[in-house]
Amino acid sequence: MKDGNNKRKLEFKLNHNIKFIGEVLKEVIKYVKANKKEYLEELKDYLRIPSISTLKSHQSAINKCSKFVASKLKDAGMESVKIYPTDGHPLVYAEWMKAPGKPTVLIYGHYDVQPVDPLNLWKSDPFEPVIKGGKIWARGADDNKGQNFVHIKSVEAILKIKGELPVNVKFLIEGEEEIGSSNLEKFIKKNKKLLKCDTVLISDTSMYAPGIPTINYGLRGLCYMEVELTGPNRDLHSGSFGGGIANPINELAKLISKLQDKNGKITIPDFYKDVKALTKKERENYKKLNFSDAELMKEYGVKELKGEKGYSTQERFSGRPSLDCNGIVGGFIGDGAKTVLPSKASTKISMRLVPNQDPNKIAKLFEKYVKSITPRSVKIKVTAHHGGLPIVMPLDDEAIEAAANAVSKAFGKETVYTREGGSIPIVVEFSKQLKAPVVLMGLGLETDNIHSPNEHFPIKNFELGILSSIYFLDEYSKTEV
Amino acid sequence: MKDGNNKRKLEFKLNHNIKFIGEVLKEVIKYVKANKKEYLEELKDYLRIPSISTLKSHQSAINKCSKFVASKLKDAGMESVKIYPTDGHPLVYAEWMKAPGKPTVLIYGHYDVQPVDPLNLWKSDPFEPVIKGGKIWARGADDNKGQNFVHIKSVEAILKIKGELPVNVKFLIEGEEEIGSSNLEKFIKKNKKLLKCDTVLISDTSMYAPGIPTINYGLRGLCYMEVELTGPNRDLHSGSFGGGIANPINELAKLISKLQDKNGKITIPDFYKDVKALTKKERENYKKLNFSDAELMKEYGVKELKGEKGYSTQERFSGRPSLDCNGIVGGFIGDGAKTVLPSKASTKISMRLVPNQDPNKIAKLFEKYVKSITPRSVKIKVTAHHGGLPIVMPLDDEAIEAAANAVSKAFGKETVYTREGGSIPIVVEFSKQLKAPVVLMGLGLETDNIHSPNEHFPIKNFELGILSSIYFLDEYSKTEV
Repeated sequence: MKDGNNKRKLEFKLNHNIKFIGEVLKEVIKYVKANKKEYLEELKDYLRIPSISTLKSHQSAINKCSKFVASKLKDAGMESVKIYPTDGHPLVYAEWMKAPGKPTVLIYGHYDVQPVDPLNLWKSDPFEPVIKGGKIWARGADDNKGQNFVHIKSVEAILKIKGELPVNVKFLIEGEEEIGSSNLEKFIKKNKKLLKCDTVLISDTSMYAPGIPTINYGLRGLCYMEVELTGPNRDLHSGSFGGGIANPINELAKLISKLQDKNGKITIPDFYKDVKALTKKERENYKKLNFSDAELMKEYGVKELKGEKGYSTQERFSGRPSLDCNGIVGGFIGDGAKTVLPSKASTKISMRLVPNQDPNKIAKLFEKYVKSITPRSVKIKVTAHHGGLPIVMPLDDEAIEAAANAVSKAFGKETVYTREGGSIPIVVEFSKQLKAPVVLMGLGLETDNIHSPNEHFPIKNFELGILSSIYFLDEYSKTEV
Repeated sequence: MKDGNNKRKLEFKLNHNIKFIGEVLKEVIKYVKANKKEYLEELKDYLRIPSISTLKSHQSAINKCSKFVASKLKDAGMESVKIYPTDGHPLVYAEWMKAPGKPTVLIYGHYDVQPVDPLNLWKSDPFEPVIKGGKIWARGADDNKGQNFVHIKSVEAILKIKGELPVNVKFLIEGEEEIGSSNLEKFIKKNKKLLKCDTVLISDTSMYAPGIPTINYGLRGLCYMEVELTGPNRDLHSGSFGGGIANPINELAKLISKLQDKNGKITIPDFYKDVKALTKKERENYKKLNFSDAELMKEYGVKELKGEKGYSTQERFSGRPSLDCNGIVGGFIGDGAKTVLPSKASTKISMRLVPNQDPNKIAKLFEKYVKSITPRSVKIKVTAHHGGLPIVMPLDDEAIEAAANAVSKAFGKETVYTREGGSIPIVVEFSKQLKAPVVLMGLGLETDNIHSPNEHFPIKNFELGILSSIYFLDEYSKTEV
């Protein structure tokens, strides 16, 4: 999702067709509204804990934070609350499973945060939350304490008023998201029964634009390769040898130029073989985003966009595979001039994948192709870095539909459906291991400065987020299992 | 010129057709042979002076060395010996102009040397010359003290025995060759009358192979450019933006790939327009070098050579223009993977030129072409670095012929004619300013470790070099002026 200023102002009408809201639900919402100040005070306590996962010196803060989350889940009325130790930071689990015949929602979030340096750029203490300008300012305010606290409070409100939840709910809040979630992956694999659910609900992404309720239903996968060409076995003088010995930089340039054709299609044989075409519905959704190429070009200072022929920019960003050189290096790269015919040149090339492309298969196709187009005058070495599967949730999945309705009700506008061009490995892991769709109900904004100084979260998003969560649990309870 | 082991052993017969050698010349040569031990002792004194031009701390050694050269020229019988101060290190000039009606030879050399680090790799003190294995070991032994001392001694021997030189001789020995000769250039421009001559004789290159008398009659020129492409105005996430915004690395690769066609021809329009074709005689000379592609490939570890179709490797190295990327950089170049769509990518591209290509003209053609093939989706910035004119001396020039005969007599083998793929700017400067052909009578070997630890110079080359110089002055005296 891009900055808000990349798109035209979206003009959606308030959705007046919201179905019957039960009296109980009305009361729950009333309760939330009455308690929002108290909720913010609690969120402040959560934000005061400097749970930076990457710093060993913050281990006690991590432990304290896991206990804080556990106690809040207990206070909310969740049961079987347990802190699971891992090889790294602890995981907090809780469940409420008293709705037989109803679906089970697993709510995922993370209590760890990014480091805060450079500290001097913060306008207030990153661990002493401040409310100012309709926003709460602190490290973790958006990513992810603010966004996961929304769900804890929604469950609490329903349980306080109604005494029971409309669906079964499990919480899994980890402490290592900012350092790669490797222990969470192991935990999921080992605890499939514990985590069994019908859908996974995650609020850890952004809304398409401020005020626009957004459901992200897909992520691209990744195949990241490195290619190194070696010409002569040592650097040579380009005067003495230039013209008679193949230059690995020139050859690498030729190789790269052969990876895409003039229509922006990737030329690796069978690359598109497993690509699932965008459906008519999806292309309509893309159109509804009303994305402005002109504003994108202005924002990033380019005179012309470039991509696969026949697709819109937003489709190219997230609905179609892509190929980019992420880095290239060879020969003399200092200031001035050095007349060297270098021995080596290398490039890092990543391909973003869409369903049903498989990163391992694509890595093999890539390697086979680049080797086939490399002349004998240079040696080639191909290395595969990490990869990741693409994922797309069916738009007609009941969890997706329930979530779309819920955020639409809460924010009072029609929900937009987006796919993200990047990858979130843990989402794929949840989906793969638990065989459940993942709902990405992003409540943050692109402009919230996550991972940067002066992180913040709009208070409105916090409040409407709680309502979104409540509506979702209600809506999703209508799903038959 | 390449390492000796790049070529087959050259099987030339001793040249028995050497013309009459006057009795006086015989005596001169006898004198040289009788005094060679003394000459080597004097050369040792020369080599003991640590005249490293780039180190300010060695200023007194530089001054001492210029005085040493001046005194040796005086001892040799040269006249008007003068040390010219410059904005940098002093130049030593001397002349002997008592051969009216005879041509004038300007002998150029340099008394400054390269630094010696890493000192621990030297097997003996770089400034305490050692004679071992038929070689003299010291910094400057080949480059260039050994090679210019040859000419001082040749003049001395002739003057000692005959009392006069067969031609007019001027010496110009500078102290800034290793740091760019910028004050020499100014000196030449200001002192064209003083330096007026019919040919410039320089021994500061290498022989084609050990024992093979070599005359280098050409140097390629240089046009060195830098191209920078800018895509988005900042680095972007390649997941979020990949596929929809042009990537400057991929575009740069395409640009580079369009600079040469599949036959190795440079595709810049009019690039070859001013190229003087190799003559039949020149191509025959190239063939006589008996160069082994197989040994070259073995030496540099390549399975196939690559270059302009229709030309041999040696022709490609020095007789034809070439284009090489000397460096390329863009995006993430550390270890591992980073998913960035970079803002910029740049490359340094040098073109080696042959007569009558003009570097400034080529720079303009290059810029025009690369701009014409750059898509609007990226911005291009083209910078011209230094350039240099190519030069080729006519093979039938009397100075070239005299030099070829001289080295053939001295070394007892047929002379080979080479062109060098690199550039020696000062050679072009001499030729341009003084309007005289430059004879490159290289006496060193590629394996002499110039600019490296354990520099040395074969004593045989020193002795036969003195004879070569004597024969040259004698041969060239037959030229009418």
